[in-house]
Amino acid sequence: MSTHQSLRIVIAPSGFKECLDAEAVAASIGRGVGRVLPDAVVDSIPLVDGGEGSARTLVAATGGRLVPVRVTGPLGERIRSHFGILGGPGPRTAIVEMAAAAGLRLVPRDRRDPGVGSTYGVGELIRAALDAGARRIVVGCGDSGTCDGGAGALRALGVRLLDAAGAEVASGGYGLADVRTIDRSGVDPRLAGVDMELACNPHNMLTGQRGVARVFGPQKGADEHQVRLLSAAMDNWARVLANHGAEVRTLPGSGASGGLGAGLAGLLGARLRPRFEVLLGHVDLDARLADADLVITAEGAIDHQTPLGKVPAEVAQRAKRFGKPVIAVAGTIGDRAHRNYAAGIDAFSGILAAPVALAEAIEHAPELIADAAERCLRLVLVGRALGVTPATVPAA
Amino acid sequence: MSTHQSLRIVIAPSGFKECLDAEAVAASIGRGVGRVLPDAVVDSIPLVDGGEGSARTLVAATGGRLVPVRVTGPLGERIRSHFGILGGPGPRTAIVEMAAAAGLRLVPRDRRDPGVGSTYGVGELIRAALDAGARRIVVGCGDSGTCDGGAGALRALGVRLLDAAGAEVASGGYGLADVRTIDRSGVDPRLAGVDMELACNPHNMLTGQRGVARVFGPQKGADEHQVRLLSAAMDNWARVLANHGAEVRTLPGSGASGGLGAGLAGLLGARLRPRFEVLLGHVDLDARLADADLVITAEGAIDHQTPLGKVPAEVAQRAKRFGKPVIAVAGTIGDRAHRNYAAGIDAFSGILAAPVALAEAIEHAPELIADAAERCLRLVLVGRALGVTPATVPAA
Repeated sequence: MSTHQSLRIVIAPSGFKECLDAEAVAASIGRGVGRVLPDAVVDSIPLVDGGEGSARTLVAATGGRLVPVRVTGPLGERIRSHFGILGGPGPRTAIVEMAAAAGLRLVPRDRRDPGVGSTYGVGELIRAALDAGARRIVVGCGDSGTCDGGAGALRALGVRLLDAAGAEVASGGYGLADVRTIDRSGVDPRLAGVDMELACNPHNMLTGQRGVARVFGPQKGADEHQVRLLSAAMDNWARVLANHGAEVRTLPGSGASGGLGAGLAGLLGARLRPRFEVLLGHVDLDARLADADLVITAEGAIDHQTPLGKVPAEVAQRAKRFGKPVIAVAGTIGDRAHRNYAAGIDAFSGILAAPVALAEAIEHAPELIADAAERCLRLVLVGRALGVTPATVPAA
Repeated sequence: MSTHQSLRIVIAPSGFKECLDAEAVAASIGRGVGRVLPDAVVDSIPLVDGGEGSARTLVAATGGRLVPVRVTGPLGERIRSHFGILGGPGPRTAIVEMAAAAGLRLVPRDRRDPGVGSTYGVGELIRAALDAGARRIVVGCGDSGTCDGGAGALRALGVRLLDAAGAEVASGGYGLADVRTIDRSGVDPRLAGVDMELACNPHNMLTGQRGVARVFGPQKGADEHQVRLLSAAMDNWARVLANHGAEVRTLPGSGASGGLGAGLAGLLGARLRPRFEVLLGHVDLDARLADADLVITAEGAIDHQTPLGKVPAEVAQRAKRFGKPVIAVAGTIGDRAHRNYAAGIDAFSGILAAPVALAEAIEHAPELIADAAERCLRLVLVGRALGVTPATVPAA
């Protein structure tokens, strides 16, 4: 890069949860960049983590289409949902976003007990993808509101979970405490010819101290008693799966989306893969990072959890392989955010301008993000000018 | 500057009103800078605008001393106040901060009627400075809670303001509506041998559409009716001053601190001078800016008013004469803040990390400012690295 050439800037943000999707965040950052560097060559790559909005964003990025479907919601009601058929070459690939059928946002705050909700609708989405002729199915995990070990999805695809008396157990995570045997005879035969991968956070395990009931139960509304019940139910579920030849307890990602990973991998042969390996392959991120002078990422919150597998840290880690500088725009800057400096994010900045309530910040997020990106770029340009003062660059 | 030499950074912030004084702000910025560039050569220059905290900060900067005095507060009560004796060579110079005797903060919110409060205590501070042997008196204006045309201060120094019947008019701005004649026979004779300057914003006028009653009355708690009364009183005051040979109506700064400028200039020969000319001379700002690679300033708010004579804009304007880059750290970023880019502030950044109430932001301001300074410097360093990529700097 020379100072007389245009900067090549990759804008690769996550969406801001419950605020703006990744495309909108990327567009806002692009506006801010454009105000400072109208000549910059901007490559916009909205990124997803498998959670809410992933299907819509990946469909848009690949020129595919979104397919509306009505399915069973986490609490049994009928809801509008969707899956995506990705564009591009290769076998027909569907993206099923589990949050679109069993996401936390679909569970009213006053009914949040993760042991009750079911992933039945996720199974219905997978069935709909089979109906649409998908040969490959990517299941995006994240933002789940259920913790049923994938039992609901399995049922929707023809698996029967039976108690000691041979009757089907109750729906939801608590019901898994009663499972003794599994009947796979009615499984949808089309699944045999389909490659199913779950895009999941490999740190999520089904059982144990770092098991899904203990780590995510409270986030999904479980109290201490419920966490204990659910934890015992997951232990039983893991034992029964093992009895059926599916040892998932230590499988990385078995705890993804309330144990959906365990169920689909254990009984339907789905592969559990690190989410960014699955999802970022579709947007050719590495090649585009290799071409950049500067990388701008973003997320709703930058804090000590960001380095543990969030989009900005993933972008930073990949960009650093090519020695590229990375800055992050943060909706909020949280606890111990400085840990991100060691994770490859060279600098970050918040979007908030004045003391406001969260709701107000969310309302104005598009403009706040654009302004923050502008401020970041201006600081970068101050530094760029420092770097090329006459003392540094010998006169020609 | 070479990239192998330490950066020379001037830190020249204002205080954050009702939050932190300029020294504390400078110290916080310095901490943030030190985390990123421990080798930077930092020159810390806390700046004042004549308002609250000015005496304390200038005394500290010059190695002088603060003198405690009890005076009459704006509503007649006795209060603890102070003035400063500056250190350094030259004639003994006192700094009298009007806000220390008649500041808005000294008027409880439920009693804010600027037509009632008096600057009597300011006159008492000036008398105390004379008692301390001052040969030069700098009166810092700003953050005033009164609008009495300087009447109170004049009285404390021996001037009598008489109505049509020859009786002294009531204290406060409203009383000025009744003034017909002025009796200067009792003026403190020591004033004749003293050089008095007011450090004021030259945009502030005593009367007219941009007069002090109309522009500042509402900020000090006046309603529409009170503004009209006060405006008429100021008109009368200006006429009477003119009758006594003091035409102050169009004098830049005559409206400073609720018309204190008019009174002291009109009847006691004080000179009204642009505040930064007076105040920054004591810290040798220009020479120190000329030596910097990078200038960091700060203020509690950066908005469209900043370019109209606030500290960051003054610093930026002076730094730009030497071609120095200027960045500003802002407590809050307000309306049309982008106007500062044209005012010589190359980049700015806010300190807020997450949605919070103002009170919480104020409580954590020292750390928020340090973190913001760190984030700014990191962005600058990203840019600095961009500026010295191999394509820009020929290999040695």
